[in-house]
Amino acid sequence: MEKLLIAGGDMRQLYCGRRLSGKFEVSVTGFDVDMLPDGIAEENDGKCRYAVLPVPPLDESGNVNTPCFSGSMTVSDVKRRLAPDAVIFAGRVNDELRLLFDGYEVLDYMEREELSLRNAVPTAEGAVQIALEEMPVTLSGTKVLIVGMGRIGTALAEILKGFGADITAAVRNAKGAAKAALLGVKSVCTKEMPHGYGLVFNTVPSMIFGREELSRFGKDTLFIDLASKPGGIDLASAQELGMKVVWALGLPGKTAPVTAGEIIAETIKNMISERGE
Amino acid sequence: MEKLLIAGGDMRQLYCGRRLSGKFEVSVTGFDVDMLPDGIAEENDGKCRYAVLPVPPLDESGNVNTPCFSGSMTVSDVKRRLAPDAVIFAGRVNDELRLLFDGYEVLDYMEREELSLRNAVPTAEGAVQIALEEMPVTLSGTKVLIVGMGRIGTALAEILKGFGADITAAVRNAKGAAKAALLGVKSVCTKEMPHGYGLVFNTVPSMIFGREELSRFGKDTLFIDLASKPGGIDLASAQELGMKVVWALGLPGKTAPVTAGEIIAETIKNMISERGE
Amino acid sequence: MEKLLIAGGDMRQLYCGRRLSGKFEVSVTGFDVDMLPDGIAEENDGKCRYAVLPVPPLDESGNVNTPCFSGSMTVSDVKRRLAPDAVIFAGRVNDELRLLFDGYEVLDYMEREELSLRNAVPTAEGAVQIALEEMPVTLSGTKVLIVGMGRIGTALAEILKGFGADITAAVRNAKGAAKAALLGVKSVCTKEMPHGYGLVFNTVPSMIFGREELSRFGKDTLFIDLASKPGGIDLASAQELGMKVVWALGLPGKTAPVTAGEIIAETIKNMISERGE
Amino acid sequence: MEKLLIAGGDMRQLYCGRRLSGKFEVSVTGFDVDMLPDGIAEENDGKCRYAVLPVPPLDESGNVNTPCFSGSMTVSDVKRRLAPDAVIFAGRVNDELRLLFDGYEVLDYMEREELSLRNAVPTAEGAVQIALEEMPVTLSGTKVLIVGMGRIGTALAEILKGFGADITAAVRNAKGAAKAALLGVKSVCTKEMPHGYGLVFNTVPSMIFGREELSRFGKDTLFIDLASKPGGIDLASAQELGMKVVWALGLPGKTAPVTAGEIIAETIKNMISERGE
Repeated sequence: MEKLLIAGGDMRQLYCGRRLSGKFEVSVTGFDVDMLPDGIAEENDGKCRYAVLPVPPLDESGNVNTPCFSGSMTVSDVKRRLAPDAVIFAGRVNDELRLLFDGYEVLDYMEREELSLRNAVPTAEGAVQIALEEMPVTLSGTKVLIVGMGRIGTALAEILKGFGADITAAVRNAKGAAKAALLGVKSVCTKEMPHGYGLVFNTVPSMIFGREELSRFGKDTLFIDLASKPGGIDLASAQELGMKVVWALGLPGKTAPVTAGEIIAETIKNMISERGE
Repeated sequence: MEKLLIAGGDMRQLYCGRRLSGKFEVSVTGFDVDMLPDGIAEENDGKCRYAVLPVPPLDESGNVNTPCFSGSMTVSDVKRRLAPDAVIFAGRVNDELRLLFDGYEVLDYMEREELSLRNAVPTAEGAVQIALEEMPVTLSGTKVLIVGMGRIGTALAEILKGFGADITAAVRNAKGAAKAALLGVKSVCTKEMPHGYGLVFNTVPSMIFGREELSRFGKDTLFIDLASKPGGIDLASAQELGMKVVWALGLPGKTAPVTAGEIIAETIKNMISERGE
Repeated sequence: MEKLLIAGGDMRQLYCGRRLSGKFEVSVTGFDVDMLPDGIAEENDGKCRYAVLPVPPLDESGNVNTPCFSGSMTVSDVKRRLAPDAVIFAGRVNDELRLLFDGYEVLDYMEREELSLRNAVPTAEGAVQIALEEMPVTLSGTKVLIVGMGRIGTALAEILKGFGADITAAVRNAKGAAKAALLGVKSVCTKEMPHGYGLVFNTVPSMIFGREELSRFGKDTLFIDLASKPGGIDLASAQELGMKVVWALGLPGKTAPVTAGEIIAETIKNMISERGE
Repeated sequence: MEKLLIAGGDMRQLYCGRRLSGKFEVSVTGFDVDMLPDGIAEENDGKCRYAVLPVPPLDESGNVNTPCFSGSMTVSDVKRRLAPDAVIFAGRVNDELRLLFDGYEVLDYMEREELSLRNAVPTAEGAVQIALEEMPVTLSGTKVLIVGMGRIGTALAEILKGFGADITAAVRNAKGAAKAALLGVKSVCTKEMPHGYGLVFNTVPSMIFGREELSRFGKDTLFIDLASKPGGIDLASAQELGMKVVWALGLPGKTAPVTAGEIIAETIKNMISERGE
């Protein structure tokens, strides 16, 4: 069995390691011992063929990102554990990381489409959890707008149908409208700036809800922004207008760390398997 | 317009009052002023034809139950506001209350079937919120057991289908199995003591999960008990065995107070309407 | 193994027999040989402890109802095959049948609640099949009215949600509205005589759609009546007005005979099991 | 208002014309008069700016494809009705058609992605209608395999979930599995040649079910092939083995002609709108 090193990260990386431990001899470094879940132990000997780094892999000072470790861990600490032909898996790989691991193959698991697709479900569940926590009314019967019918919009629509929400998708064009119809969801054109919804999920990473658009919604409307930076809602205007906005970052790692870790594990398995190793 | 008095209670009673304010002249008493939501103001004059008391209506010392009031309110305080032919609406009416309001008609809104039916949806949503908060994995793909296919079991099944959970209903007999089939849900007989589920919702108010039954589940299983007292899970044994159990009391008032209050309001409207007034 | 006789009926009775053949020694009579499905053979010897008769059990001339038999079968023909303590299972038992089988215990499987509940799903599937066949537009996006939220209304709502139909339930009172909400379906009061739907399923056995009500719908509306006699649609007026009405009798036997037969078999098993035999 | 000519085709083209008649002055040619639905009349004067030809546009003898016309219509007949700058819309345009309409702009509405997406829903509904008609058991509880999680597979999964079918998607890779999970559907790898299903929908246009694969299924299994030519099921082997296979061609035109026609109309509207006319 090949050796694999989990080097830093949050609970996702630990659960990723636990999932991989059937197929690899897994070591863990960069975590306080009391953080380790059952079935994962720190081990210190042997050179590893594979290393898994977190998302993002480095912190601001250029060390490995170790939010679950009271100490700190340098890139050299990691390299000491690597076999000469080691392959590095990390999330959101940048040039700095490639330079620091010069000579090693560095692969980005966050760029894999199956990971994005798989993450859509736990992300949508986390977003619905936020909605349930923040709203004083039921999702049943609530008029919900989902902006964007991509992966996350699709997953949201599926879940919200079960709640009996009154769902509308905001889409850009005829193709988007057709995708919504495929899921049994009615749609409006984003440009028509729909309003009159009690709950809005944005999944599109461009500025959809500026001051003018926001001002057409009531103050009871809850906005949940799921778009990656810079997000799709003008937060400053929202604050001035007294609108309720949640910028839901860190999903799905926060709300479903086990599933998020297992998705990383399965993606890495696929990446290794495609290498023919 | 007839006068109606909201006398004590929690946010539900306030939202109930807000909902009724289109149809009645609503006064509020037994709340700190800063608790009052927009659209509801305390008023002190005039004798009321109807009064709405909370669930349960009295506290341990025999005063009106006023969890949102820093002072206290006696039954006499309420009576002073009542017209001679006033009708009292309260939740979980008992003999003590009837005695204290002797001479008035006292009706229980919690005993109305449409209220129980309507409460099932916000209760189920609250239960799913708990599951999302407590579980480190997604509901999607989780094996879920719903014990009982009554109102709440039905509402849970509808919601969880949207999540893509793998749902089984535990039912007592052929009729229960048929009800589950009606919702497209497979079923097992409760007596066969099913196990091997990641999440269990109990809705049946009799001791289903004693020590022996609990011990057949893994420690990763989350139990959420929605049954009214005494509940269906042996909490002492669960604690000894290290099982995760949430006894979800206070739903739906806690998680969806606006909806819960509006359901009370609609029920009271129906009760008044049936009196032909 | 006890002997059980399938005496007359349609394909349902044959599939019922096939299902029971693991648990009983099944004989068949009152069918042309070429109607018999695989796994069922006609046998002629031995006295039977149980006999299954069809729905209804007798034809107009007082013989056993044998639509799949080119000959005819009298009650005496059946009696000749019965043990002295035989139990007769039949559907829609009337006094005539009880008289003809005087001295035997006669039980009605159609009166069992689990059978009605179980039949709701195949009945609803058959009704949806009719809608798909008759309508030149998709169910997706069609405005559908379901009159009645009982067993069949519930099963219809579940199926039609999957199609992305725009479903409204017509209900009589607050309780019905609450039942609809439980399934995530909006509702209107039957008395308000809703109109403007492309497809209407009636499940209520009382005259809901008289001439005046029908005339408020467009001629493109398809009405499917699932109520037992006398039905809920004034067929004469519908014809005069040129409305499209399908009175869907014979479901689920016609559209899902295997399932319908197995439901009868399971019901008879339960009835025998409850006798403690 | 611009003039638009519907030239030949089936009911879809007529309903397409009816839908376009609000926005264009629509003429119809190549249909027997008694085929024309309400709201569509044959007109013969004036040169048309747009012409809509059927799918495929030509018959075997090189005339326009006119299955609803007892006469025949040549390409010259159509040209006589065209303005010099006319635009031709047709389905499955080939070189022959381009040559015959040399000098005119010829566009293919069947190649538009929004049309394929929109057609998925009526195609899936038609396929489910076939399943309901052919199967003697309910879809509820039936083990269903959907091969391919593209547009049609997605639409099928949505519908069949409502029926309470036990759905599995057969997918090629991790991305397909992730797409299935997005819809809350479990999946298997196509290569593992899944078997043991009562109903199989194939949507993939490559030979998935050869003799060997087919022979692993029982004879009660119903196969419905929705893939375009050459289809994904070896029909000759299926026949030899006595398997039940329906090759569902002509969907959605046959089962939902109004919807199919309206989808063509909306697509043509989009195509014209994108031209900036």
